[in-house]
Amino acid sequence: MADKINRVVLAFSGGLDTSVILKWLQRTYGCEVVTFTADLGQGEELGPARHKAELMGVKPEHIFIDDLREEFVRDYVFPMMRANALYEGLYLLGTSIARPLIAKRQVEIARQVGADAVSHGATGKGNDQVRFELGYYALAPDIKVIAPWREWDLTSRTALIDFAEKNQIPVPKDKRGESPFSTDANLLHTSSEGKVLEDPWAEVPDYVYSRTDDLVQAPDTPEEITIDFKSGDGVAVNGEALSPAALLTRLNELGKRHGIGRLDLVENRFVGMKSRGMYETPGGTIYHAAHRAIEQLTLDRGASHLKDELMPRYAELVYNGFWFSPEREMLQAAVDHSQAKVDGTVRMKLYKGGVHITGRKSPHSLYSEKVVTFEDDAGAYDQRDAEGFIKLNALRLRLLGRRDRS
Amino acid sequence: MADKINRVVLAFSGGLDTSVILKWLQRTYGCEVVTFTADLGQGEELGPARHKAELMGVKPEHIFIDDLREEFVRDYVFPMMRANALYEGLYLLGTSIARPLIAKRQVEIARQVGADAVSHGATGKGNDQVRFELGYYALAPDIKVIAPWREWDLTSRTALIDFAEKNQIPVPKDKRGESPFSTDANLLHTSSEGKVLEDPWAEVPDYVYSRTDDLVQAPDTPEEITIDFKSGDGVAVNGEALSPAALLTRLNELGKRHGIGRLDLVENRFVGMKSRGMYETPGGTIYHAAHRAIEQLTLDRGASHLKDELMPRYAELVYNGFWFSPEREMLQAAVDHSQAKVDGTVRMKLYKGGVHITGRKSPHSLYSEKVVTFEDDAGAYDQRDAEGFIKLNALRLRLLGRRDRS
Amino acid sequence: MADKINRVVLAFSGGLDTSVILKWLQRTYGCEVVTFTADLGQGEELGPARHKAELMGVKPEHIFIDDLREEFVRDYVFPMMRANALYEGLYLLGTSIARPLIAKRQVEIARQVGADAVSHGATGKGNDQVRFELGYYALAPDIKVIAPWREWDLTSRTALIDFAEKNQIPVPKDKRGESPFSTDANLLHTSSEGKVLEDPWAEVPDYVYSRTDDLVQAPDTPEEITIDFKSGDGVAVNGEALSPAALLTRLNELGKRHGIGRLDLVENRFVGMKSRGMYETPGGTIYHAAHRAIEQLTLDRGASHLKDELMPRYAELVYNGFWFSPEREMLQAAVDHSQAKVDGTVRMKLYKGGVHITGRKSPHSLYSEKVVTFEDDAGAYDQRDAEGFIKLNALRLRLLGRRDRS
Amino acid sequence: MADKINRVVLAFSGGLDTSVILKWLQRTYGCEVVTFTADLGQGEELGPARHKAELMGVKPEHIFIDDLREEFVRDYVFPMMRANALYEGLYLLGTSIARPLIAKRQVEIARQVGADAVSHGATGKGNDQVRFELGYYALAPDIKVIAPWREWDLTSRTALIDFAEKNQIPVPKDKRGESPFSTDANLLHTSSEGKVLEDPWAEVPDYVYSRTDDLVQAPDTPEEITIDFKSGDGVAVNGEALSPAALLTRLNELGKRHGIGRLDLVENRFVGMKSRGMYETPGGTIYHAAHRAIEQLTLDRGASHLKDELMPRYAELVYNGFWFSPEREMLQAAVDHSQAKVDGTVRMKLYKGGVHITGRKSPHSLYSEKVVTFEDDAGAYDQRDAEGFIKLNALRLRLLGRRDRS
Repeated sequence: MADKINRVVLAFSGGLDTSVILKWLQRTYGCEVVTFTADLGQGEELGPARHKAELMGVKPEHIFIDDLREEFVRDYVFPMMRANALYEGLYLLGTSIARPLIAKRQVEIARQVGADAVSHGATGKGNDQVRFELGYYALAPDIKVIAPWREWDLTSRTALIDFAEKNQIPVPKDKRGESPFSTDANLLHTSSEGKVLEDPWAEVPDYVYSRTDDLVQAPDTPEEITIDFKSGDGVAVNGEALSPAALLTRLNELGKRHGIGRLDLVENRFVGMKSRGMYETPGGTIYHAAHRAIEQLTLDRGASHLKDELMPRYAELVYNGFWFSPEREMLQAAVDHSQAKVDGTVRMKLYKGGVHITGRKSPHSLYSEKVVTFEDDAGAYDQRDAEGFIKLNALRLRLLGRRDRS
Repeated sequence: MADKINRVVLAFSGGLDTSVILKWLQRTYGCEVVTFTADLGQGEELGPARHKAELMGVKPEHIFIDDLREEFVRDYVFPMMRANALYEGLYLLGTSIARPLIAKRQVEIARQVGADAVSHGATGKGNDQVRFELGYYALAPDIKVIAPWREWDLTSRTALIDFAEKNQIPVPKDKRGESPFSTDANLLHTSSEGKVLEDPWAEVPDYVYSRTDDLVQAPDTPEEITIDFKSGDGVAVNGEALSPAALLTRLNELGKRHGIGRLDLVENRFVGMKSRGMYETPGGTIYHAAHRAIEQLTLDRGASHLKDELMPRYAELVYNGFWFSPEREMLQAAVDHSQAKVDGTVRMKLYKGGVHITGRKSPHSLYSEKVVTFEDDAGAYDQRDAEGFIKLNALRLRLLGRRDRS
Repeated sequence: MADKINRVVLAFSGGLDTSVILKWLQRTYGCEVVTFTADLGQGEELGPARHKAELMGVKPEHIFIDDLREEFVRDYVFPMMRANALYEGLYLLGTSIARPLIAKRQVEIARQVGADAVSHGATGKGNDQVRFELGYYALAPDIKVIAPWREWDLTSRTALIDFAEKNQIPVPKDKRGESPFSTDANLLHTSSEGKVLEDPWAEVPDYVYSRTDDLVQAPDTPEEITIDFKSGDGVAVNGEALSPAALLTRLNELGKRHGIGRLDLVENRFVGMKSRGMYETPGGTIYHAAHRAIEQLTLDRGASHLKDELMPRYAELVYNGFWFSPEREMLQAAVDHSQAKVDGTVRMKLYKGGVHITGRKSPHSLYSEKVVTFEDDAGAYDQRDAEGFIKLNALRLRLLGRRDRS
Repeated sequence: MADKINRVVLAFSGGLDTSVILKWLQRTYGCEVVTFTADLGQGEELGPARHKAELMGVKPEHIFIDDLREEFVRDYVFPMMRANALYEGLYLLGTSIARPLIAKRQVEIARQVGADAVSHGATGKGNDQVRFELGYYALAPDIKVIAPWREWDLTSRTALIDFAEKNQIPVPKDKRGESPFSTDANLLHTSSEGKVLEDPWAEVPDYVYSRTDDLVQAPDTPEEITIDFKSGDGVAVNGEALSPAALLTRLNELGKRHGIGRLDLVENRFVGMKSRGMYETPGGTIYHAAHRAIEQLTLDRGASHLKDELMPRYAELVYNGFWFSPEREMLQAAVDHSQAKVDGTVRMKLYKGGVHITGRKSPHSLYSEKVVTFEDDAGAYDQRDAEGFIKLNALRLRLLGRRDRS
């Protein structure tokens, strides 16, 4: 197990678990630990992470704390949204999409500091270990990967806390008892799973929700907003130009207020089991609906249907951790090719958990009132063409009918 | 144009348009008209249709009025719902799915009465002409099809009303002026399009909604309900066993009360243009969400993901009118094969336009709390297996990384 | 029918049919005809086309004769070959891929000479009319299209020849009688169909073949050749660098000699009927096999399998005439993304109609003898990883088996 | 490693490797070994297997030798051929398709004799271990699987032979030295890989081929044969009715004589590496070509194109070992639904490695000479319909062209 490691870059949140891992890596591998803490909009202070790392002997120049929020939304969330990706028809992939960016930055730091290994705090039953490690291996094929949860013997909460105490790692009071569920958060979403959520018939308790207000308590009046798109990406809310991260932040505020984006899901993990999770994706849910609406006006049918057919595959690849794979990149190339004219404005009402599209317009609209109108169209469309269209579409069915139904 | 026709079966609603068509067929083709009026749950009295047909000289034995509601839900709506079909990601295909059944019954009647032609009242710009006629041709390859809207010169409302008056067809007062939009209804949905809806930026006026109550006026308290499934089909609501049509009717009442199932959509028609429609599918929206939820528990990942990938194609086929095609039947065979164990109960809350799943259980659940648990799983899952799983999934990416990223 | 046309650009081969069309257009529409004759490698002299056009009064500046062979292979054949496109599993799309280029050039000429219409000599039953016209409409949405075979009353061979004689169009002796079949040729292939080929049970007569030598007469010794690829495109044969058209020409010579690329096919036309054709694609067949072989070495599995899944759709789009469609372009973007490292050399033997790959090598090979070897691999691959890989891939099947097979 | 095992069913060929495994299982696990030897048409005597098993102490009632040839072809090869399955465009899956049947029978025997484990002789780098074990786990979720090649320390040929000699296992002379390549054979194919084949640039040596005669030595005259199909399966050769296994045997003889079905392939294994193999599939290659040919006549376009799009996925599932998975069964249900009328006769010539279709006929042909003819079709097809067909197919492209190309 314990190959000789000199220096390892750890994805370090500053919480109890990754603090224990930090210490365990130092002990087990006798190696230097470099910490990397990313601000992906999870809404936690990052200062304490630096302090803790220092306390455990990490050299100041080996403590990396990066604000990756803009990169996260611009290069990961938005490209995925261009594909209208939904895993298993419903899940907006909030956790999945953050992992490749963390892996990529860890590998960059490993190169910068001359580390020969990377490590993460994901458990051995989940998808995140796969996503992290496929990212590491794709970007740095010969790097060593240390996954403490699959290696160590700290298999119970008690053992973990014992280890912490023996090693002078402060254990916050609220971590002493069993947490009733586990969460992951970033600018796109908060996920909750485990413990009280493990019975898929039991309703999610109110106290689990953290990113969205209760629907019944939400405002009794719908709020109308607009999102502007340019080349398939959101650029403004209510007419105000915003950077990608600022735009998603704004939509998160709006979504939170109206209780938007709650999802109670039983999903299929890549590692082969079903799990039950609760996701809150307030801004992402609004954005997804709006992006579909602007595509309705600006995408040709052929492009649109091809996108719909490719989407489940795309979503599966992201979910399974294959962001840095040729096939995801190929699908992205196809999707991106379609987005050049996906420009315009979508108007919608937010109300009690719902996003209700009320209008869309575009300088590049393919909708032609002149062609579609119930009124006289002045020759824009010749209804007699429909006869030939139907006749030739029917020809094979008629030949078949003569054979099989006569 | 006017091939010699002896007897034609007309899809006859009893409204002004199909009354004019009835007369026009008699005049233009000098043929006997057989009327067929179907109860698909559109919520209109069918008695007047008989009376009108008689007034225009249709022989009593040539007036067919059938209650097709159970057949409609059991053999068309439910199979489609097993596929989780959504056209362009959103539309539940309420109009599309009714057309093949009407076409099938028309062809049966044509055989029964020895008619050599069929006719319908769909216009030359829409999808319905295609759906009707592909159905006719598939089931009766040599039948003659008369599509008056593509043939006649009654191209304006005025011309139509003139024709009606000259031929003693009563014109209801509310049909004299221009209707502000056009609708189609059946047990699954009501669609509205045209006129006031033609500007996709303009919000749908309140008076267009007929099947769902206003969201803001809807009850301020969520209503919890359950649906039971057996082999992929709904069999009970709140524990009460119901026939397919009765079940959908019950869900329509619940959905109406809570403003569920409104959809403002710009869609791509098969005939090549974009159109804007507003759909209300109250019960179908609830049913669709519940079916996905019970599948989450009872469908294997492989089956589930394959269904998701095939779904857009299935929905496109239904939308385009290819219900009676080998490829739709092949997809149905695949889908149906997956549904044998899709049994169980889904619980959800209906509130202000939203359907919120709160739990699901099944005698055939594939969810294993023992495997997935955050707690000690007593060996149900060996976390070390994950390392090999990741390593071999990563192998090709590593070989690629060595080539491309070094 | 006869809208006012001022000037029309005709795709003009110089043969009897398009000569009659030229005259018929002048007569019927009283318009100026501009002729466009493309050298796509069909192997005919183009000089006579100029002469004939002049004889029929076409102005010299309105006679366009272009050598499009390099553009054809570089921008149409090679991109299609990158996708490994085969229609219905077998057909290399030789006719289909030429039509968009002709349409594009016709539209360019129409713009240049200020023409308001385009015309072609394809019949009303085939696919080519669709391919030409979808090309015209995509590139010049408001152009008028004249399809004489769908309009005129020259419905028999006799009528056509009568018209020719009455209009001083020379009728070659061999065109007086009925030709026993019809052909289309370009640098990629020659197709033959109709008449003697219409019975799909009757063997294709020897005299139909024109591009490939008889297999039994072909050399009794295999000939070994190599093709070099760069970024997915062929660049050399037997080590000699060649332009795209020169390379395909060379492969055609080799293929002809060895009787390679004959295909007797019953295919499904876009217009709804089945037809039987015989195709000869000597060089293309060799090229296709070689391209697959070099991809075997240089494409990652994910890319390769995605390409295989997208291919039938791509081929269908090309066959149906949707070259200039967003969805074909999206698929092309995906395919092209995969080809950057498709470099190397393929060696094969040509013998009696067969192409037999005997080796392939690449500077960008992903094949690792070190990993795959049956010998000791010095730790390049840890066989124990396979256990975890299998266990987690099996997990869902085991959960399923416990439910369904116990 | 050594869980307590009572009785294990070993897939036993009687060769050196599985003899060593037999002994090793007895030694290592101290358990009773039950041998299972299947006749899948590999062309070896099975008598010696019984004798060897007896010599090593296997009880007579624990030696299972089954002739599975008919089941193999009828329930595995033919269903796969209905799908026209080709892995990576070329490989007929001869090894892949045999594994599930062996696994299924092993599990049946395990149940019959009360064994708690199964074992096989596949190595840790290949696909076969996956195919066997996914089969075991799907059919017997709680069975123990022993894969000696992943467990033991007999990692070199020398070690293996030492073990054999120490344990009185006879080592055939030709097994003392290193075999220059490794093979697998059954009624469908023989595969060869490893050692001399490991360099993908080196030509396959002549001595590797065992199932097909040399092309240059093959008869100088083409041989014409016919195959009859019924509901998608072959039922006769040259008019003689044959059982599935007898039919494939007959085609193997014909294919061998004409050097048909050799394939030199670099493929992507499920475990993540590329490997180079040489396959000989004489009868299967003929059958595959003939099945496509009869489908050309009898399958509707919609069914045919859907099959083509699903095929790569189907082939991948079989290759990867997911025969007993819901998704393979769903695809099979779709495929099988299409085959009801795939009846008729295909005629072809076999010559120097090639299969050349020369005709096909069917009582259920969808080919209509009347519709397709170049001659006057007496109104079977109205060429004017094509105009409307093209116009409506072009409509979206025109709207797009107006936006993007003006």
